[in-house]
Amino acid sequence: MEHDPLVIFTPSGKRGRFPVGTPILTAARQLGVDLDSVCGGRGICSKCQITPSYGEFSKHGVTVAEDALSEWNAVEQRYKDKRGLKDGRRLGCQATVLKDIVIDVPPESQVHKQVVRKAATARAITMDPATRLYFVTVQEPDMHEPTGDLERLKSALSEQWEINGLICDPHVLRKLQPVLRKGKWQVTVALNKGHADDTHRLVEIWPGLHEGGLYGLAIDLGSTTIAAHLCDLVSGEVIASAGVMNPQIRFGEDLMSRVSYAMMNPGGDLEMTSAVRDAINTLARDIAREADISPELILEAVFVCNPVMHHLLLGIDPVELGQAPFALATSGALYLGARDLDLDALNSGARIYILPCIAGHVGADAAAVALSEEPGKSEDLVLVVDVGTNAEILLGDTSRVLACSSPTGPAFEGAQISSGQRAAPGAIERIEIDPDTKEPRFRVIGCELWSDTPGFVQETAVTGITGICGSGIIEAVAEMRMAGILDAAGLIGSAAQTGTDRCTPQGRTHEYVIHDASSDGGPRITVTQGDIRAIQLAKSALYAGARLLMDERGVDHVDRVVLAGAFGAHISPKHAMVLGMIPDVPLDKVTSAGNAAGTGARIALCNAAARAQIEETVTQITKVETAIEPRFQEHFINASAIPNAVDPFPHLAQVVALPDVSFNSGSGGDAGASGGRRRRRRG
Amino acid sequence: MEHDPLVIFTPSGKRGRFPVGTPILTAARQLGVDLDSVCGGRGICSKCQITPSYGEFSKHGVTVAEDALSEWNAVEQRYKDKRGLKDGRRLGCQATVLKDIVIDVPPESQVHKQVVRKAATARAITMDPATRLYFVTVQEPDMHEPTGDLERLKSALSEQWEINGLICDPHVLRKLQPVLRKGKWQVTVALNKGHADDTHRLVEIWPGLHEGGLYGLAIDLGSTTIAAHLCDLVSGEVIASAGVMNPQIRFGEDLMSRVSYAMMNPGGDLEMTSAVRDAINTLARDIAREADISPELILEAVFVCNPVMHHLLLGIDPVELGQAPFALATSGALYLGARDLDLDALNSGARIYILPCIAGHVGADAAAVALSEEPGKSEDLVLVVDVGTNAEILLGDTSRVLACSSPTGPAFEGAQISSGQRAAPGAIERIEIDPDTKEPRFRVIGCELWSDTPGFVQETAVTGITGICGSGIIEAVAEMRMAGILDAAGLIGSAAQTGTDRCTPQGRTHEYVIHDASSDGGPRITVTQGDIRAIQLAKSALYAGARLLMDERGVDHVDRVVLAGAFGAHISPKHAMVLGMIPDVPLDKVTSAGNAAGTGARIALCNAAARAQIEETVTQITKVETAIEPRFQEHFINASAIPNAVDPFPHLAQVVALPDVSFNSGSGGDAGASGGRRRRRRG
Repeated sequence: MEHDPLVIFTPSGKRGRFPVGTPILTAARQLGVDLDSVCGGRGICSKCQITPSYGEFSKHGVTVAEDALSEWNAVEQRYKDKRGLKDGRRLGCQATVLKDIVIDVPPESQVHKQVVRKAATARAITMDPATRLYFVTVQEPDMHEPTGDLERLKSALSEQWEINGLICDPHVLRKLQPVLRKGKWQVTVALNKGHADDTHRLVEIWPGLHEGGLYGLAIDLGSTTIAAHLCDLVSGEVIASAGVMNPQIRFGEDLMSRVSYAMMNPGGDLEMTSAVRDAINTLARDIAREADISPELILEAVFVCNPVMHHLLLGIDPVELGQAPFALATSGALYLGARDLDLDALNSGARIYILPCIAGHVGADAAAVALSEEPGKSEDLVLVVDVGTNAEILLGDTSRVLACSSPTGPAFEGAQISSGQRAAPGAIERIEIDPDTKEPRFRVIGCELWSDTPGFVQETAVTGITGICGSGIIEAVAEMRMAGILDAAGLIGSAAQTGTDRCTPQGRTHEYVIHDASSDGGPRITVTQGDIRAIQLAKSALYAGARLLMDERGVDHVDRVVLAGAFGAHISPKHAMVLGMIPDVPLDKVTSAGNAAGTGARIALCNAAARAQIEETVTQITKVETAIEPRFQEHFINASAIPNAVDPFPHLAQVVALPDVSFNSGSGGDAGASGGRRRRRRG
Repeated sequence: MEHDPLVIFTPSGKRGRFPVGTPILTAARQLGVDLDSVCGGRGICSKCQITPSYGEFSKHGVTVAEDALSEWNAVEQRYKDKRGLKDGRRLGCQATVLKDIVIDVPPESQVHKQVVRKAATARAITMDPATRLYFVTVQEPDMHEPTGDLERLKSALSEQWEINGLICDPHVLRKLQPVLRKGKWQVTVALNKGHADDTHRLVEIWPGLHEGGLYGLAIDLGSTTIAAHLCDLVSGEVIASAGVMNPQIRFGEDLMSRVSYAMMNPGGDLEMTSAVRDAINTLARDIAREADISPELILEAVFVCNPVMHHLLLGIDPVELGQAPFALATSGALYLGARDLDLDALNSGARIYILPCIAGHVGADAAAVALSEEPGKSEDLVLVVDVGTNAEILLGDTSRVLACSSPTGPAFEGAQISSGQRAAPGAIERIEIDPDTKEPRFRVIGCELWSDTPGFVQETAVTGITGICGSGIIEAVAEMRMAGILDAAGLIGSAAQTGTDRCTPQGRTHEYVIHDASSDGGPRITVTQGDIRAIQLAKSALYAGARLLMDERGVDHVDRVVLAGAFGAHISPKHAMVLGMIPDVPLDKVTSAGNAAGTGARIALCNAAARAQIEETVTQITKVETAIEPRFQEHFINASAIPNAVDPFPHLAQVVALPDVSFNSGSGGDAGASGGRRRRRRG
């Protein structure tokens, strides 16, 4: 007996025998090969493109003849004429099996394609979006069988796609009849998979085959900025990215001042809710315009945010988050409609997913970092620090993950710093101080040259030199410490003590002048004693949080450190460690994860299974509340010294020798916020 | 071995042995006895009141000693002092079993109590509302276990009430934290049972034990009037009823003129949607004010309506309902939120249920009549006619049910009648014409006296005699036919032909004067030839629809007729049959069901299981589309004659002798709308 022809799919390696005349798409479906199709094999969506391979395949044990597939047909030709089709490609629904064949499924024809992030630590996202398109042919109405149009659409989805339990959004119900008729009873529907059960929600409908795409927003709703990525929900690509300032800033710079605003002003919470929702609507419209798509095509949005932003987005008064026991209204993930949040810029049927919060001070942003960086899958003990106005800190490995947040304040972002500014052209972002001459050189954003090289003045003429951004202030303080201008207690020395006139008196303390253009009417950029104190507070909070997790875990060192957050990408590991922001590890064990929270949001947007995964993960994370741990205060005070009054930094000592200076002797200056003893350390 | 004491519950007869000290509530729960409790046995809600019976019970084979229950306790005394407790009553959660005992559960302590309708055909409604109250004690937040307040509420409901799968409405999430704290972690929640699964939706929350009640609206959304009953969702009682005119009337009196308005005016459908939603909001606020409750306590609403009203309520353009094949956007039942319909007068979390439609012309109102009158449970063949602007007609018995609707127009409601008016004081509602003198006498709404009795003029001085309402015009036409003023073809005779000057010329036809106060500047109330034609059209449509169903069923008579609709209650069976509105049956087999659609809405409001039942029932009903059945036209033409040109009315003939008159001979008058042959019939 003659065997049926053998069909082998690559890259999956799945194989099976099929009767002559079986369409490749049918064979793929029966074998469970991931081959996309929106139109269900009608030859109109072109999603099922495949590449047949011919010749000898010793690896597979087959020889593929030139006539192994049915001939190129009129449907394929029409598609190629109209839309184009790469050479060698066939439509899987048209090409049928004649003889043994090897079929390659190119990535763009796979539903569950992998999208590789651009960030350094490449973590692929597997596409498995909650919202997908289905093309469907609906039976026309018949007076003798008087079911509704929706009921016949349901039957069609059940028969043609085996989708049952359909829920129809009222706004879709309103357009159902005209769209069905316009599409001559062929329509494309966007269905959103339910999270807890087998239901699908009908969120949008288009006449005929919808080719306008399908988009989602991954939104990182921060205290200071709101950043959004517009993702193609089919390809997984980021089509556009945009950010706006969080307009809630006018109600308070940091989280606690916003909570206070809500407490002091009746209705203040709703003012802030309204402000942030308006900003998100504007952002959505702007990003859609930038990507040249209709915002109506945005059918999903995923939010990550800290607990206070979370509550204010939902319209919940955050007052409970401002006082012990810091109870969240809800910690679970939320599945909502855009209407629930007044997000009218999106499609009215758009679905919203908000990641779960971990604890009252550890929000959905931390959960997103956990989803992106997966400390629970790390073989070695990793500390993940998401640096922002609040720092989210995760410590863990495959055995256990702990989390806390720490109120670093906005100093790391250049706020509350005398010459501080946001990262923008003209801001000093890198700085080096010569340990002998104590002279600085620096670079500003928008210019590749160092300030002591020819051409710098010309190249920065337009932007000017306007201030210091977050990464610049960290480098400045660390360099001052390495150059002996700043002592371990955080005191800036006088000109006499340091041997440089750049240290000038400012009241009872001193400041270090980095750049002075005041004689030309320009800015005078300095690091003041107050700036040092602000950085000390911020870095102490960060370090104390990390140290607390290490205590809980029972360790005194970690294997590696991941710096996350947009700002984390710009921090120099060496300077961060000189400052004592992070625990001592070999410098090459400090890596940047970019905007890990944003990546977590993208993952949850593109992969529905990841939602269930992070919802489960957060329940297993040990939450540590810094505000009630007495040791947090102790770690905080010790961490006030630069790098630390108690903890040794042996790896740092191997690469940097910190001068043994102290400027407190009879100078009348401030003795330092730490009040702790100072240790001398050298390389 | 001593047996545990025996506990016998009445009226259920359930019995079981329980250890000494078992609370009666616990025993009831274990036996599955229907004993209510909102507070879960904490002695504060008093829902579990029971009446112990003492003495000899030979029927049950027990003797109950005086000390069969634990002593009256402090909790009961406190409750009695505060709220009162009937003599002999105990709280089931406080009284515990000591010896054999007989416990009566009074109806008000049963969740699934039966509520008997006031209407003639007493159909009990079993209480099983979708929305119920649960009192629950929630664990306080703890920094070491940082779950959200909602998550702890979910745990509490799971532990204390075995309720899982809770969905929380965003508006409840917003008030969750203050309410939990105000109630000192004891709250009452209103949960709405999901229709398709085991989920419950948290729709409202109150601090402590909520004693303000829980209400629902059963709304009959008619083309002309919107009628609402406000029901107590615990007792099932109707607390208040109210009605308003449907403001859509300004866009068109009947359904098709509203569909036309939508077709001719872009956005006209949305205008009508907005108008009806506004009216419902006003109605809800009015009815709540009348009942002296906050509209915030209205947590459910059930709608019944015809398909055009259904679509306009939902904001769906009804254009498809105006043309074959009369496709509904959706025929299935709808489970929505009040917000989906902009019903902001209700609680923001209120749930909406809309009964399924049967077909494009047979709406949720017909489904409600089917739910109320249950033709599918009738042993004999019953014809149910819901008379309104559109007539919904059901024919069936236990073997099969058929349904259609027929466009009777508003003539039966007094509209499009020259002297017609709505049923209001001053309207003629009853009329008799002496067959010998041809003189009429009548009664008007608001006065018990006939017009030919002393005192009538005085008693009607205030209201006046203003017109004829729907039931009045039917009686007038039937009486004219019986008195020989009108012939079978529907032609009014001249004064010469009829022998009464009350028949006066009006153009080429005649009119019959019922009341003439024009000499005093009052109204002249007549029945014109045009009025006769309008009634002929209406009654022919109604009869033809019924007859069509009989054809489909293969019968030429029915066993009984039920007249439903608010108007149906006022129609005299004899006059209806003289007119030939309904098929010939013995007069005592014509009954009125009152507002059956409204009753169906109440049933669906009070009993969640009835929703599933009617959803299943409608799928089994055979739908007949009158618009495409050629026999409908034939039946319609035959029915134009009074009572009918073809069908015999033997039962009618036994009680009424119709004069054999014909006024068409050489009078030059209209030959009658029927154009059909005229049959002579006598008693």
